[in-house]
Amino acid sequence: MPQDRKLRPPATLPADLVAAMVVSIMLVPQSLAYALLAGLPVETGLYASVLPLVAYAALGSSRVLAVGPVAVISLMTATAISGIDPAAGVTPIAAALALAALSGVVLMVFGALKLGALANFLSHPVISGFMTASALIIIVSQVKPLSGLPLDGYTLLDVGRSLAAVGFHLHLPTAAVGLATIMFLLWARHLLPGLARRLGLSASRAALASRIAPVFAVIVAIAASITFDFKAMGIAVVGAVPQGLPPLTLPPLSPALLLDLLLAAAAIALIGFVESVSVAQTLAARRRDSVDPDRELLGLGAANLAAAFSGGMPVSGGFARSIVNFDAGAATRLAGALSALGILFAMMYLTPYLAALPKAVLAATIIVTVSQLVDFNAVGRVWRYARTDAAAMMVTIAVVLAKGVEWGVAAGVAVSLALHLWRTSRPHMAVVGRVPGSEHFRNVLRHHVLTAPEVLNLRVDESLYFANARYLETQIAQLIADHPEIKHLVLMCSAVNFVDASALESLETINERLKTAGVTFHLSEIKGPVMDRLKKSAFLDHLTGQVFLSQYDALKALSPALAAP
Amino acid sequence: MPQDRKLRPPATLPADLVAAMVVSIMLVPQSLAYALLAGLPVETGLYASVLPLVAYAALGSSRVLAVGPVAVISLMTATAISGIDPAAGVTPIAAALALAALSGVVLMVFGALKLGALANFLSHPVISGFMTASALIIIVSQVKPLSGLPLDGYTLLDVGRSLAAVGFHLHLPTAAVGLATIMFLLWARHLLPGLARRLGLSASRAALASRIAPVFAVIVAIAASITFDFKAMGIAVVGAVPQGLPPLTLPPLSPALLLDLLLAAAAIALIGFVESVSVAQTLAARRRDSVDPDRELLGLGAANLAAAFSGGMPVSGGFARSIVNFDAGAATRLAGALSALGILFAMMYLTPYLAALPKAVLAATIIVTVSQLVDFNAVGRVWRYARTDAAAMMVTIAVVLAKGVEWGVAAGVAVSLALHLWRTSRPHMAVVGRVPGSEHFRNVLRHHVLTAPEVLNLRVDESLYFANARYLETQIAQLIADHPEIKHLVLMCSAVNFVDASALESLETINERLKTAGVTFHLSEIKGPVMDRLKKSAFLDHLTGQVFLSQYDALKALSPALAAP
Repeated sequence: MPQDRKLRPPATLPADLVAAMVVSIMLVPQSLAYALLAGLPVETGLYASVLPLVAYAALGSSRVLAVGPVAVISLMTATAISGIDPAAGVTPIAAALALAALSGVVLMVFGALKLGALANFLSHPVISGFMTASALIIIVSQVKPLSGLPLDGYTLLDVGRSLAAVGFHLHLPTAAVGLATIMFLLWARHLLPGLARRLGLSASRAALASRIAPVFAVIVAIAASITFDFKAMGIAVVGAVPQGLPPLTLPPLSPALLLDLLLAAAAIALIGFVESVSVAQTLAARRRDSVDPDRELLGLGAANLAAAFSGGMPVSGGFARSIVNFDAGAATRLAGALSALGILFAMMYLTPYLAALPKAVLAATIIVTVSQLVDFNAVGRVWRYARTDAAAMMVTIAVVLAKGVEWGVAAGVAVSLALHLWRTSRPHMAVVGRVPGSEHFRNVLRHHVLTAPEVLNLRVDESLYFANARYLETQIAQLIADHPEIKHLVLMCSAVNFVDASALESLETINERLKTAGVTFHLSEIKGPVMDRLKKSAFLDHLTGQVFLSQYDALKALSPALAAP
Repeated sequence: MPQDRKLRPPATLPADLVAAMVVSIMLVPQSLAYALLAGLPVETGLYASVLPLVAYAALGSSRVLAVGPVAVISLMTATAISGIDPAAGVTPIAAALALAALSGVVLMVFGALKLGALANFLSHPVISGFMTASALIIIVSQVKPLSGLPLDGYTLLDVGRSLAAVGFHLHLPTAAVGLATIMFLLWARHLLPGLARRLGLSASRAALASRIAPVFAVIVAIAASITFDFKAMGIAVVGAVPQGLPPLTLPPLSPALLLDLLLAAAAIALIGFVESVSVAQTLAARRRDSVDPDRELLGLGAANLAAAFSGGMPVSGGFARSIVNFDAGAATRLAGALSALGILFAMMYLTPYLAALPKAVLAATIIVTVSQLVDFNAVGRVWRYARTDAAAMMVTIAVVLAKGVEWGVAAGVAVSLALHLWRTSRPHMAVVGRVPGSEHFRNVLRHHVLTAPEVLNLRVDESLYFANARYLETQIAQLIADHPEIKHLVLMCSAVNFVDASALESLETINERLKTAGVTFHLSEIKGPVMDRLKKSAFLDHLTGQVFLSQYDALKALSPALAAP
């Protein structure tokens, strides 16, 4: 926590108040929209935007992260709820509360165990593929409220099957409202900032105006809906929203239900955490601030538990709203807690107006928002850089689209781990020689270097561990068999960051085999921590040759004729 | 394949003939013993020692590896067979044939795909733990034929339960024969070589005599059994062994059975392959020869398929018999094929005598052989070197003893992979400075070095990939937040062997965040292959700072005051 805040608390309060007001204006329509996306009554979205914000402010570490319902988490919630056997007698709301509670517990436990690093196994290509595929599913799922088509399902296959079943019967008034909103939002995103700048606004104000535009769409739509009685025209509207404070709720705790939801809850916790930390770190860096991932786990865990006990759906840190919070000048976590007051105000006094809001408008805001997440170019970009990463990305996209969100994440992680292990199991190795006139040693195949026929200098570009230890044995056996003139082998370890017990056994084996073949085995450039560990074993006693501090020292000792400047 | 063999084939023939004779003498009792260990009729062991040897000679790559039934594979066969539902109507022999066929197919497929490297994921501690635990189970399983106790089961729990159920009723004559054999074999192993040397034999001849000793035990036991009619005394004997050539058999191909056996077959293939390659490489190195793991897969696969179609049990390369083959002077793979002739001879003319052999003698040879595999000291040795490796080893031992062999292997591999990934996800990093009077850079915490307050030199000792990319982001954000005076950050990449797409994104993020924080981001000592890849991305265009060839170049450019000699 920054020192300066304690020294002059009043100085940051006005900034936090302004930011809180802007964020809460933005949060109201988003909360409604994401609750509908999750297949829940709209008020669960509003409830999730009150107490969770206060809980995060109490335990989280970011000064600007704005939590609440977000698109991808809402989709995951919808998928998880729809997967529950209807015969179990669990209402969607009860399932959402259980899911929030379970995610909260998962996050808190990982935070308490300081296991935030586990999220690192979700690679960027997997997250990127996951986001693209999820956004596609969300867009497709919003075709129903946008067009009035009665579709169903949360994978492309399900929705396609559903579309084939019901046929294509547009409800024209609904579609007109939806498309008009999409056009306005696209205009606000792409053209409004330029216009605002020409009208004299600063760049950051112009961007803020563009981001707040959905709120104007909502206000205009409500006015139009009341004036022209959209409901009578058959356009679906949000309908009655309970007025007043969030209720006190108890999530259902049946073990069977919790077991059913555990994978989904873990996926929600993981994705929510990764996204939140990434947003928080990006914004913190702009002020030379930092974020503690383990405290983020606690903050997000507390936010989800708060949601579970106050009638809310699972929550996470949102990208757009956090940037708005930052741009509006939020100075401390108090801004987040103050936004909760704004939502409370809306719940006390604005719900009668929200009832008239057409669902198609909310669908349009969701579609325009998540369409920014679709990034097919990323596949090509990653493909050019590393095909293994592109493979993990494509598997993730395919499995999310075909099997659903949690399976996509699991498959992506499995594929990226397998490909990583495969790569490190066949490390790059180079026979090296001395670059004339220097103490440098480079690959004999790439450079003109000095070598002695009876000394083989081998550089291995990987830490030595079980997956590549036997590969090293095989490669060295091959080199020795191919070059009967060799009397000394020097293994250059400048890129070896550790040697595990398997690799140690392999080094022993190599030493033993080289001894029977009449070759002396030396090591050079071993790092401090690796050497500390080798000294605990008997290997250095058995080593037939020496350990040289540098490859050049090895050259001076083994082939002095080549060491002359 | 060595050139010299083609130029003068007759020169190696006598050596191969002698080696073949010695190996086949040794193989006869071993084949009987391991068939009994697997819970199969003794002839399946003999059949597995004929055609498979020829098949391996045709496709394998080692000149001295002797294949046939081996202890651990026999135990795995016994476990797999005992796991088949008796209601399925599959005889143990049919199951063994199916298992051999399936292992053969697995090995051939992996050989054809050149996936021999997959075996590398079986770490040394896992193999060592697996061998210790398997040997314990084998020893316990042989208490029944050794003592005449009617025990059952293939895990310690099962055998313990069985012992508790039947009580301790020794059959004294059986136990006397068994214990006498054990005493003789221990004497032959530990004292005979010294005696033979004092009698004037060379060291290698003395070792050979010690290894052939079990054959004498068998001959003496058969003579005693016939003379004193052991069978009438209630001592279990091998009984009638079918005389003649191995039969032509077809393994049962019911999909349900094959699915049941698939995990066991994969484990047999994996363990057999790893052990064979290790034996073959050790022996090849003594002659500066090498072994091709992918051809070993084909050779072992062909051997198992040959076993399946000629009435045999699953086979693998054996350690003891390969050393005997080597010491007896085998020069080419022909020696292996010729041993098959020796076994054939035994099957034609010696089976009437083998019928009188007490099973307790075979049990004694198994116990004495596998007791060499038990190595509890390894746990302590590995523990002192690396606790993560010791953990993987202990999990393997525990799971093999409690749940069985395949589960133990699977658990060991899973634990070692998880621990490896965990380790690389939190790489060692050091802030470095220049060692006065040199161009070397070392850790500021360990050495007295020169640093400039506005330049932070950070060395990361690990390849950058998804599991540690975000850790790097967090660490750098922390460093920058803690040191507001920093204007330049130089990331020293001498130990970075690759940068995957996730880490590239993280470098982009770090660059972006440092830019907003007013810090210039530089890289130094990037390796050739890593640089080639970075050049394919847009990262170097975005980089706010420079890429320095060496850390010293960075020093000269950024804080020239410190660069003076």
